[in-house]
Amino acid sequence: MNTKQVEIKNSSVQAIEWLAEGKLRLLDQRLLPVSEVYLDLGDYQATAAAITDMVVRGAPAIGITAAYAVVLGAVEKYNEDEMRWKASMADVFDTLARSRPTAVNLFWALDKMKAVVAAHKSGSPIGQLLAAAKQIHQDDIAANIGMGDAGALAILEQSGASRPVGKVRVLTHCNTGSLATGGYGTALGVIRSLWKMNRLEKVYADETRPWLQGARLTAWELCQDNIPVTLNADSAAAHLMKSGEVDWVIVGADRITANGDVANKIGTYSLAVLCKHHGVKFMVVAPTSTLDLNMSSGGDIPIEERTAQEVTHIQGKMIAPDGVNTFNPVFDVTPASLIDLIVTEKGVVSAPFSESLAALC
Amino acid sequence: MNTKQVEIKNSSVQAIEWLAEGKLRLLDQRLLPVSEVYLDLGDYQATAAAITDMVVRGAPAIGITAAYAVVLGAVEKYNEDEMRWKASMADVFDTLARSRPTAVNLFWALDKMKAVVAAHKSGSPIGQLLAAAKQIHQDDIAANIGMGDAGALAILEQSGASRPVGKVRVLTHCNTGSLATGGYGTALGVIRSLWKMNRLEKVYADETRPWLQGARLTAWELCQDNIPVTLNADSAAAHLMKSGEVDWVIVGADRITANGDVANKIGTYSLAVLCKHHGVKFMVVAPTSTLDLNMSSGGDIPIEERTAQEVTHIQGKMIAPDGVNTFNPVFDVTPASLIDLIVTEKGVVSAPFSESLAALC
Repeated sequence: MNTKQVEIKNSSVQAIEWLAEGKLRLLDQRLLPVSEVYLDLGDYQATAAAITDMVVRGAPAIGITAAYAVVLGAVEKYNEDEMRWKASMADVFDTLARSRPTAVNLFWALDKMKAVVAAHKSGSPIGQLLAAAKQIHQDDIAANIGMGDAGALAILEQSGASRPVGKVRVLTHCNTGSLATGGYGTALGVIRSLWKMNRLEKVYADETRPWLQGARLTAWELCQDNIPVTLNADSAAAHLMKSGEVDWVIVGADRITANGDVANKIGTYSLAVLCKHHGVKFMVVAPTSTLDLNMSSGGDIPIEERTAQEVTHIQGKMIAPDGVNTFNPVFDVTPASLIDLIVTEKGVVSAPFSESLAALC
Repeated sequence: MNTKQVEIKNSSVQAIEWLAEGKLRLLDQRLLPVSEVYLDLGDYQATAAAITDMVVRGAPAIGITAAYAVVLGAVEKYNEDEMRWKASMADVFDTLARSRPTAVNLFWALDKMKAVVAAHKSGSPIGQLLAAAKQIHQDDIAANIGMGDAGALAILEQSGASRPVGKVRVLTHCNTGSLATGGYGTALGVIRSLWKMNRLEKVYADETRPWLQGARLTAWELCQDNIPVTLNADSAAAHLMKSGEVDWVIVGADRITANGDVANKIGTYSLAVLCKHHGVKFMVVAPTSTLDLNMSSGGDIPIEERTAQEVTHIQGKMIAPDGVNTFNPVFDVTPASLIDLIVTEKGVVSAPFSESLAALC
């Protein structure tokens, strides 16, 4: 993929930006949508803390942030000791690896940067490392744009005849946009591409309890680009489908197993069942780095549970009785049988997924 | 039904109480679960406002509150003019009818009170009206206990063999308990009866966005009575069903049409579709005052939409971008074909509902 023709600034939202002065600027996602605050980070420790504290979130965005943090670490270590800086980089990589230990893309990005460090011969490594970090960032955006366009075209192929105006109405869950990636987005990238092609009528955004990524991030991000978005409670999605308001549900993925089962934000599986009942199409958009072909099916995926506080409190406000039991799974697993299309940067595939996914790799 | 043997205080929660001093005491449900505050209301206008402002909610509770408000109105009008008070009662009934215009039980209760006003011959009407309001209140509790026991027995009949310990796990939506009725509850009444019979393993409570009746009210109410409750985000219900954690979903109803279609809190229809997919049984519990046999099917029910603020803010905290479009329907309609049992105070019925419901009346 030729990344030279891709501009980094592809939406009005730029959540990760390398500044000419040698700092990393991150949009503090914890404060959205109330405040739009950017943090300019000058060292790798602060950047690791920003990852841990969820200033930045979304697997691809975390990987890109960590790559830039390696540059910040290298500047510090090289300035300290131009001869022995390579040995000191172990601290940098260790600190960053600990910042969010379950993020697969984090380790993938750190490995790429480690390879650049290892290959470096002499003189300052900063130029090479910065180029590598920028490449990771640009490659992610290019992959997103590729997936977005391919997903949009696949939808238009299947939906063209069903809507007289030739426009589609989609529903999405969680945030998979510029805020979660290097820019553009995965599922939200398909939505951006539909908009760019003038084939999007509107987006329904599930608010996505308990973290409210849909309300806080997706709705904000789409408003920034004047893409028509309507926010709804998660439980209203079925009513929307029954009313004929949704042509496609488009979601991202945290992990896709060899048979095409998809682990994604809690509520994704619910949407897939509702789609099947209503004859609404269901699309998953994720880079091939999300594929876990060593895992045969979604039944093997452990479901992480998070703290009760996420369910009992919203932004510090108590909404449930003290000490009540909660069930707060982060993910659910959608079986391949409920999925129409999986869109990756290497192609758009359909059932049987065990064959079509294997053929991509 | 002999209501004389029914005590009003049947759970530790008493949300509606007529005080000996001639005031109506309402538990302010807007402040739960953070604060347990009671409002003592001395006039019908304030009581109508309390209905509009959701101090009290739940169809039966609204009806009972309105009945007591008629008493407050009659006291005022009778004190103003002992001869012409009946004519002035039109103001009282109009004000109350406008307080929550989609609540069927409100009109049902007002009609009952109108009949008492119309039949009144001479002297003060207050004693008769108060007796009528108390009868509506007591009848509701008696009906709830009857429905609770009947619904619980129907569940045990069908579920007995499937769970080795003889206990069932249920999931409920919104609040249909002592806080939504005269006391005991409709769907939550069935759950109370299962608990009383020692046949309840646990209750999953959907938090029920956007108003969070499940988190704020159902979880609170069940905790008050030490009934084992686990709170979950609405979108986690599908995952719970897939995990085999739910034997029955039990919900209330705002309106039931002649064919058995059920209008109820947004998210109910979603649960019914999920139940069908997972082979989980679906029960609706509502008094026959909820039946609207003049309406042939749920397609005729207008779906009230409420303010965007309910979706964009939680307890005053902004959780979505300023000015974003929202879709905030209060109800959805569950078709009869997705319902296993409808429990009323006159009996438990199953499909074909157009026949079984008509036979009840």
